[in-house]
Amino acid sequence: MKKEKIQTGPLSGFMELLPAQQMVFNKILDTIRRIYEAFGFIPIDTPILERAEVLLAKAGGETEKQIYQFKKGDTNLAMRFDHTVPLARYVAEYYNELTFPFRRYAIGKVYRGERPQAGRFREFYQCDIDIIGDNNLDLRFDAEIPSIIYMILRELGFDKFTIRVNNRKIFNGLFSGLNVAEKSTGIMQSVDKLEKIGTAAVRLELQELGLQSEAVQSIFDFIGLKGSCDEILDGLKKFTIDDSQFNEGVKELSEVVTMIKQLGVPESNFTIDLAIARGLDYYTGTVYETRLDEYPEIGSICSGGRYDDLASYYTNRLLPGVGISIGLTRLFDQLYKKGVLKTGPSTPTKLLILPMMDDLGPSLSLATTLRNNGIPTEISLVQGKTKKRLGYADKLHIPYVIFIGENEIQENRYTLKRLDTGEQESITLEELVNKIK
Amino acid sequence: MKKEKIQTGPLSGFMELLPAQQMVFNKILDTIRRIYEAFGFIPIDTPILERAEVLLAKAGGETEKQIYQFKKGDTNLAMRFDHTVPLARYVAEYYNELTFPFRRYAIGKVYRGERPQAGRFREFYQCDIDIIGDNNLDLRFDAEIPSIIYMILRELGFDKFTIRVNNRKIFNGLFSGLNVAEKSTGIMQSVDKLEKIGTAAVRLELQELGLQSEAVQSIFDFIGLKGSCDEILDGLKKFTIDDSQFNEGVKELSEVVTMIKQLGVPESNFTIDLAIARGLDYYTGTVYETRLDEYPEIGSICSGGRYDDLASYYTNRLLPGVGISIGLTRLFDQLYKKGVLKTGPSTPTKLLILPMMDDLGPSLSLATTLRNNGIPTEISLVQGKTKKRLGYADKLHIPYVIFIGENEIQENRYTLKRLDTGEQESITLEELVNKIK
Repeated sequence: MKKEKIQTGPLSGFMELLPAQQMVFNKILDTIRRIYEAFGFIPIDTPILERAEVLLAKAGGETEKQIYQFKKGDTNLAMRFDHTVPLARYVAEYYNELTFPFRRYAIGKVYRGERPQAGRFREFYQCDIDIIGDNNLDLRFDAEIPSIIYMILRELGFDKFTIRVNNRKIFNGLFSGLNVAEKSTGIMQSVDKLEKIGTAAVRLELQELGLQSEAVQSIFDFIGLKGSCDEILDGLKKFTIDDSQFNEGVKELSEVVTMIKQLGVPESNFTIDLAIARGLDYYTGTVYETRLDEYPEIGSICSGGRYDDLASYYTNRLLPGVGISIGLTRLFDQLYKKGVLKTGPSTPTKLLILPMMDDLGPSLSLATTLRNNGIPTEISLVQGKTKKRLGYADKLHIPYVIFIGENEIQENRYTLKRLDTGEQESITLEELVNKIK
Repeated sequence: MKKEKIQTGPLSGFMELLPAQQMVFNKILDTIRRIYEAFGFIPIDTPILERAEVLLAKAGGETEKQIYQFKKGDTNLAMRFDHTVPLARYVAEYYNELTFPFRRYAIGKVYRGERPQAGRFREFYQCDIDIIGDNNLDLRFDAEIPSIIYMILRELGFDKFTIRVNNRKIFNGLFSGLNVAEKSTGIMQSVDKLEKIGTAAVRLELQELGLQSEAVQSIFDFIGLKGSCDEILDGLKKFTIDDSQFNEGVKELSEVVTMIKQLGVPESNFTIDLAIARGLDYYTGTVYETRLDEYPEIGSICSGGRYDDLASYYTNRLLPGVGISIGLTRLFDQLYKKGVLKTGPSTPTKLLILPMMDDLGPSLSLATTLRNNGIPTEISLVQGKTKKRLGYADKLHIPYVIFIGENEIQENRYTLKRLDTGEQESITLEELVNKIK
């Protein structure tokens, strides 16, 4: 009698990839990491498990419900749901040993036990950078962030994307100047629906919230500001609202935009979008969203912003910061399903050596040379028919195969076979390295 | 009144590193990964959370108690405690889409809630490779494993290490031939204490287990086999025990040793160690341990072996495999505490650009050139005194600083400063890239 076997799929909401997909995923991850390091961000790896009180200090509402929490012994544990809270704890803990502005990147899995639905994951990679200042942080860093997003997306092969920039102080100042600050959440929610339900419906909703018609008109005038960065900034400067926060926001946004241009981001890839708020509580200044122009339905693939105080739950020091996060698992999933990402080989191996003799020595010596030259190489160690051994290379899409036997060694000429075309050529070992490299 | 602040250290048993340490840790991790890929292993990333029944199928005893388990909604969840069980599930699930022998590597965190003690971690990196055959797997793969361990340790800068090889069939056959198979656990535990408690005490323990004096003598003769690989193999061949499993084990070990030599591992770095068993249940043939000769107290830093059947809990297919695991977190911790690992800079940044003018354009253009050439570069965006800005580079041990102002741009000569020596030189931008590269 056979034992009943256990179900072998991963949990729902947990991405698991086949080899060829994983290779593509890792390539994207490596590119992001390389660019983060190219900009001098320091890799920091915090635990996935934290004391629950650490993670719950800042969470609340929907996020709190989603956290994976449990008890082990007497300790309440929770799995991290982002990289920002662990960063806050880290900076508070090691403040004296860190150098500010502290530029750190974090690439790793985070956990949110939300109801699984298409394109949503419970375990997913977030790729974050943050720059944390000690007591203050120059506005120039707000401008550096889009230049990093720009470089990453270019390196990933995209050229049609738009980094959208805004400043939360403008919204806050607008609502405050219109004396509707306490209704800001409701207003934002209505405004967010503009594309879906249309102007008239939003106008009605705003009136139902108790806004006077002048306030409603101001809000529509405000979100009606469109055009190039300069045109929008011009419009904002002329906008008749008497509020110091509004003016400060406009001034900051204007400075940031000027520096973004200096830092090499062309206007074809960034814009001011006055409708971006990025949640109501967390960010306090510049905010970012990034969309792929051809796939707007994916939503923002890289978002973030400036916050006045990173770690107020953990330290009394004032630690302002600015950062972004790329939700890689979701991005990969969407791009893959749309066919934007093409898979290649199912292995890193570039060359399979087929020893046609018992002594593995000569094969090993070739393999070592190739490996030392950065060329992943396998020695075929299965025994049996050549056809079957070639089948292995075929299935994995290994590009090259080379045969090594007594004759080959004596003559120092080997048969190199390209598996996609079937082409064969006679080659010396010395030529081989350059050929494949 | 100030709020009470939350404790900011990581959980006990969870490693967390400062930037300079993290840089060293990542370098080791990257080396292991590079070598795994150089040997054609495929990266597979399974979830950290699994259905509890998947992980508990194989666990038991101490391991089961250590597993982090909890319930979310109706689902019993558990955090992976190794990479082997998820691999078994993965291979069973995707059997039809994989190519065999399936070579995969897994590098990632695993979790064991054991009582924290010096050198033990609850969250730690395991770096695994396994080669899984479909129905059978040639013994040659058992010989390939030590050649991979050899390459990794050499690349990590070690030359004094010993890979110890044994075959479980020899032990099993010995006990079976002596008719003491049912006492094997007790015998092994006694023999393991040989160095600690001495020959006489072990002899006594074996007698107390009920072994007859001839059997005790045979066991002592057996573990007394020392010397070069050839000497031990000679001794084994002459060893008078009549058991087919014993003979098969000796034959396998002899073949594996021959091929290990062919695959380039010098005898100074490997040996047969007949005392290695690697737990009693899991492995069925070749087993490995690896020690640093100068730090025997660290114990085995890379262990593994051959198993007849990877995934019997999940599939009826016979999937034999061979693999190893490097427990990187513990290894790093031990080497770091011994001073074997030296930390360097606290940032990937190789050059800090100090713009001495408002326009960031020229600094950006230099930074982009350097970044595109693989040189991590930061533009100093803080404003203030040059001394303070240099202090930032000093503290992080950034090797080079360059000043960019109006004059420099006009004359295309820049002052490059080496921070460790204080040396300055005048240089063109074209020269700079080659200099730093």
